[in-house]
Amino acid sequence: MFTSEILCVGDELLSGITINTNAYWISQKITEAGGSVRRITAIRDDVDEISWGVRDSISRKPDWLILSGGLGPTYDDKTMQGVARGLSLELALDKTALDMLKKSYARHSVTYELNEIRLKMAKIPIGSNPIQNPVGSAPSVLIESGETKIVCLPGVPEEMKAIFLESVLPQMKKIIGDFHIVESRYETIGVSEAMLAPILSEIVESNPPDSIYLKTHPLGYTSDNNNKKPQMLVQIVSKGKDKAEVQSRFNNISGMLLEEISRLNGKIV
Amino acid sequence: MFTSEILCVGDELLSGITINTNAYWISQKITEAGGSVRRITAIRDDVDEISWGVRDSISRKPDWLILSGGLGPTYDDKTMQGVARGLSLELALDKTALDMLKKSYARHSVTYELNEIRLKMAKIPIGSNPIQNPVGSAPSVLIESGETKIVCLPGVPEEMKAIFLESVLPQMKKIIGDFHIVESRYETIGVSEAMLAPILSEIVESNPPDSIYLKTHPLGYTSDNNNKKPQMLVQIVSKGKDKAEVQSRFNNISGMLLEEISRLNGKIV
Repeated sequence: MFTSEILCVGDELLSGITINTNAYWISQKITEAGGSVRRITAIRDDVDEISWGVRDSISRKPDWLILSGGLGPTYDDKTMQGVARGLSLELALDKTALDMLKKSYARHSVTYELNEIRLKMAKIPIGSNPIQNPVGSAPSVLIESGETKIVCLPGVPEEMKAIFLESVLPQMKKIIGDFHIVESRYETIGVSEAMLAPILSEIVESNPPDSIYLKTHPLGYTSDNNNKKPQMLVQIVSKGKDKAEVQSRFNNISGMLLEEISRLNGKIV
Repeated sequence: MFTSEILCVGDELLSGITINTNAYWISQKITEAGGSVRRITAIRDDVDEISWGVRDSISRKPDWLILSGGLGPTYDDKTMQGVARGLSLELALDKTALDMLKKSYARHSVTYELNEIRLKMAKIPIGSNPIQNPVGSAPSVLIESGETKIVCLPGVPEEMKAIFLESVLPQMKKIIGDFHIVESRYETIGVSEAMLAPILSEIVESNPPDSIYLKTHPLGYTSDNNNKKPQMLVQIVSKGKDKAEVQSRFNNISGMLLEEISRLNGKIV
């Protein structure tokens, strides 16, 4: 198990313009690699906010802090400044990052003058390692701070995903090695959340932390007015390094739940 | 203008199981009402985390702190405990909340024994005001702490939306009164983010903070290999209390941007 936090930078995430699919996607990948996302925070395009976000997160010493957004050339792209301030590092034009930027432009067969605005994308905190952006322009960076690896990814989903898959996920996968997840969802009729609550507690308490995930989602009631029955989605996840153990834990939990649902006169639909 | 923060509680938001559409929807409603969302945080179903989240947020004195998730009867529903601990309040069975719970069950024509597990949903921090849940079971609560109104909403989207629209949004709308937003999106060819960066900075600096939102989203490049051109989405938002002023500001900004795009030999598609 390794721990991580996600810090998304962008006014558009706070004003209902953009849904935070980046955090969703990243947390899915980290979970599949056996990691645990402990917190997701979305903050404004503001140097102080970004600086606070970085400092606050590393104070909890996650293994990884993944930032997304704010790497571009426009007025509201402030992530490098914020990260530098948060870590008390200076920003400087980095030769490798500049080469990466040139390579990105060459890949698109476009010739741009490297003016002050474009050079901004190659100014990174001193001591950080630039990462080539295989889709867009602005390089990413990896910075080690104490026990935490900080990665700054672009906000554009295609760019973020490409860099994450190519340069971040392989490093994460090395930490845990093989990791297995077995998951299932059942729709039920006739049992409520409160009715299943005791067995859920019992199952959760008798399994190692982070080895299972059990959740009931109420879906309302059947429409038959004379005999309304609660509907629910029951979700079971078993995960861990040992494939056979993961499967056997999943089977046990499913068995216990299905038995209890039937005992309560509920049924699976 | 009023300020707010959103705190979403739920392991499923951190493990890539559920996309945080609640935060998106709430932030949209708050923005439309003239408010500003300063931060969105997703945290685990953990009493200490929730308690930290509440305390951390109210230290910044937002006018509103909206929590979502963790009000149900199951083992992982811990929001009331976390909020109570964060505010140093005791939890107690509330008569009004209990009546609301009974009313919810009656609405669905279901008769449940009010056992310990169901009564949990009527145990709220002493001094808080319960709010009827018109869709599901668990009542919401409103708690005033210093300058901040704290609202705890359910995580189930239909329940959350119903309570927000009925009991929270009207109060927010009273703060600002009339509020207007004019928005438009253009797709462009032939101009890059870096090319538009100077005019964006100029426009942002010459308008009052929070009155406009300007953003460029790179969309890649045209596929013509001999003459690749950058493609972009340009988004313009003007907002404020005075309808005529909002429209005129929008017209000015659009005019300046379209003129600059044309000057740079780009075009709108």
